[in-house]
Amino acid sequence: MAKRLIPTLNRVLIEKIVAPSKTTAGILLPENSAKLNSGKVVAIGSGLRDKSGNNIPVAVKEGDIVLLPNYEGTQVKLGEKEYVLYRDEDILGTLHD
Amino acid sequence: MAKRLIPTLNRVLIEKIVAPSKTTAGILLPENSAKLNSGKVVAIGSGLRDKSGNNIPVAVKEGDIVLLPNYEGTQVKLGEKEYVLYRDEDILGTLHD
Amino acid sequence: MAKRLIPTLNRVLIEKIVAPSKTTAGILLPENSAKLNSGKVVAIGSGLRDKSGNNIPVAVKEGDIVLLPNYEGTQVKLGEKEYVLYRDEDILGTLHD
Amino acid sequence: MAKRLIPTLNRVLIEKIVAPSKTTAGILLPENSAKLNSGKVVAIGSGLRDKSGNNIPVAVKEGDIVLLPNYEGTQVKLGEKEYVLYRDEDILGTLHD
Amino acid sequence: MAKRLIPTLNRVLIEKIVAPSKTTAGILLPENSAKLNSGKVVAIGSGLRDKSGNNIPVAVKEGDIVLLPNYEGTQVKLGEKEYVLYRDEDILGTLHD
Amino acid sequence: MAKRLIPTLNRVLIEKIVAPSKTTAGILLPENSAKLNSGKVVAIGSGLRDKSGNNIPVAVKEGDIVLLPNYEGTQVKLGEKEYVLYRDEDILGTLHD
Amino acid sequence: MAKRLIPTLNRVLIEKIVAPSKTTAGILLPENSAKLNSGKVVAIGSGLRDKSGNNIPVAVKEGDIVLLPNYEGTQVKLGEKEYVLYRDEDILGTLHD
Repeated sequence: MAKRLIPTLNRVLIEKIVAPSKTTAGILLPENSAKLNSGKVVAIGSGLRDKSGNNIPVAVKEGDIVLLPNYEGTQVKLGEKEYVLYRDEDILGTLHD
Repeated sequence: MAKRLIPTLNRVLIEKIVAPSKTTAGILLPENSAKLNSGKVVAIGSGLRDKSGNNIPVAVKEGDIVLLPNYEGTQVKLGEKEYVLYRDEDILGTLHD
Repeated sequence: MAKRLIPTLNRVLIEKIVAPSKTTAGILLPENSAKLNSGKVVAIGSGLRDKSGNNIPVAVKEGDIVLLPNYEGTQVKLGEKEYVLYRDEDILGTLHD
Repeated sequence: MAKRLIPTLNRVLIEKIVAPSKTTAGILLPENSAKLNSGKVVAIGSGLRDKSGNNIPVAVKEGDIVLLPNYEGTQVKLGEKEYVLYRDEDILGTLHD
Repeated sequence: MAKRLIPTLNRVLIEKIVAPSKTTAGILLPENSAKLNSGKVVAIGSGLRDKSGNNIPVAVKEGDIVLLPNYEGTQVKLGEKEYVLYRDEDILGTLHD
Repeated sequence: MAKRLIPTLNRVLIEKIVAPSKTTAGILLPENSAKLNSGKVVAIGSGLRDKSGNNIPVAVKEGDIVLLPNYEGTQVKLGEKEYVLYRDEDILGTLHD
Repeated sequence: MAKRLIPTLNRVLIEKIVAPSKTTAGILLPENSAKLNSGKVVAIGSGLRDKSGNNIPVAVKEGDIVLLPNYEGTQVKLGEKEYVLYRDEDILGTLHD
């Protein structure tokens, strides 16, 4: 069973971040804190090709924590894990502390 | 919890300006004065890429007070604050006193 | 409260011209004379950017009296005055006496 | 009241030709002879701009008698006269005796 | 009354060929033989303009017998004759004996 | 009556291959064997023109046996024979033994 | 009967991989393990042509195990085997162990 996916073109493989609904100490968090739809970039494609045949670099890189759009990407299951695929232009931004 | 977003491509992160409905002296303002749909640019992307792979600079810059279109952008909550994301071409203009 | 708007890209800020329904001497004008949908260009953007990153000049200039299309632009209120925003390609032509 | 319009970009101002339904001698003409939807070019724009910023010349010139498409253009009244605006690519051809 | 039309851009003026439903000897032809939707090119435009402002030659030439698409072109009456206008890319091919 | 068609641009004239429903020895073939929607290229156009005015060669050549899409092309009758026209980009591939 | 297909342009011929619903030892696998919609690349086209007439290489190569989109490609039967055709940009990525 396949365990690794290298996306084509400007596709980006994302592992979604599920916000905890309780703190590690067991205290329930208010609903708002889970609202951010984010994920971690696990793999990226080699980019779309421009008119002269060169690759346009993908707008995010492996390891980036990214803000995802409200519409769903393509769901992919590799091994036991669920991922989601987006085109790089669909990703809204990178998140930082 | 993420506190900072760097938008991708030509996206612009905006903090909306809520017009006061009373003056600081407590006098109610007439309805019209709250009509302008404006915001402050908090962060911008690195721009779309043109055919030769160069970045096209984003049409507004951080700190600009901008006039927003009538259609809603993508809402984003970072920390305790609400923001909205637009593509730079959706922003109608910059406001000045 | 903002008093001045600098439009983005190829947007044009227009102050609509309301045709008088009476002459200054108080004589009612026939209905047809108010039919022309025109306005005065108050501010223009810096233009769309072409493939090599240069600005394409906006098709009208500040002070031009222009013929507007039948569809409505985006309404904007600055200070006490009402304006309307169009893309330069929507403007039908410039009017001259 | 404005008397002259200089169209923007590739727009063309047309004065429609109304075919007489009687000859000057008062003889009624058969219905078919009025069928050609034609007009005279009164003013043209400076043309659309190509990728390098140059103007693409408008496909018809002032004074040309042109064949109009079946769909209506934008109606404009200047002074006492009615005109119609088309994009140059909508004009079907030039008519010659 | 106009007798000649010079089409604009890549338009092509066609005189339709009406297949005889009887031979010259008066023998009725079977239905199928009239099925080919063809015409003769009477006049062509100067061609669309490419990005560098050059004319792209029209894909057919005056005098060509052409195969027409199933959808109707724009009908034009010049003098006593009926014609039809198509864009050159709508014409399916040239017919030869 | 026309016997030969030279297609325009990137059009391709195809003679459809009708799979026999019996072998030459008279044995009925199972239904599946007739399923491939194929044809023989009889004539091709000179190709679409690129931005610099050069012809882009048609993706198939005369004599090729090709796999056709599930949607129907434009039917053409030349002399006694039925053909079908496709754009070269609609053809799925070339078939080989 | 044709046995080999060379796809046109950026088309890719895929042999779908049907996940076993039992292990070779006869143990039924849980439903999820069959969920990945994958296939093996059997043949590729020569690629789309760019503006200067050069071929843009196809994004996958013969022998690649690929992840397919949720929408169905064009089904093709060659000899006794079923295949499916996709455009290379529809393929989501390549799978690796």
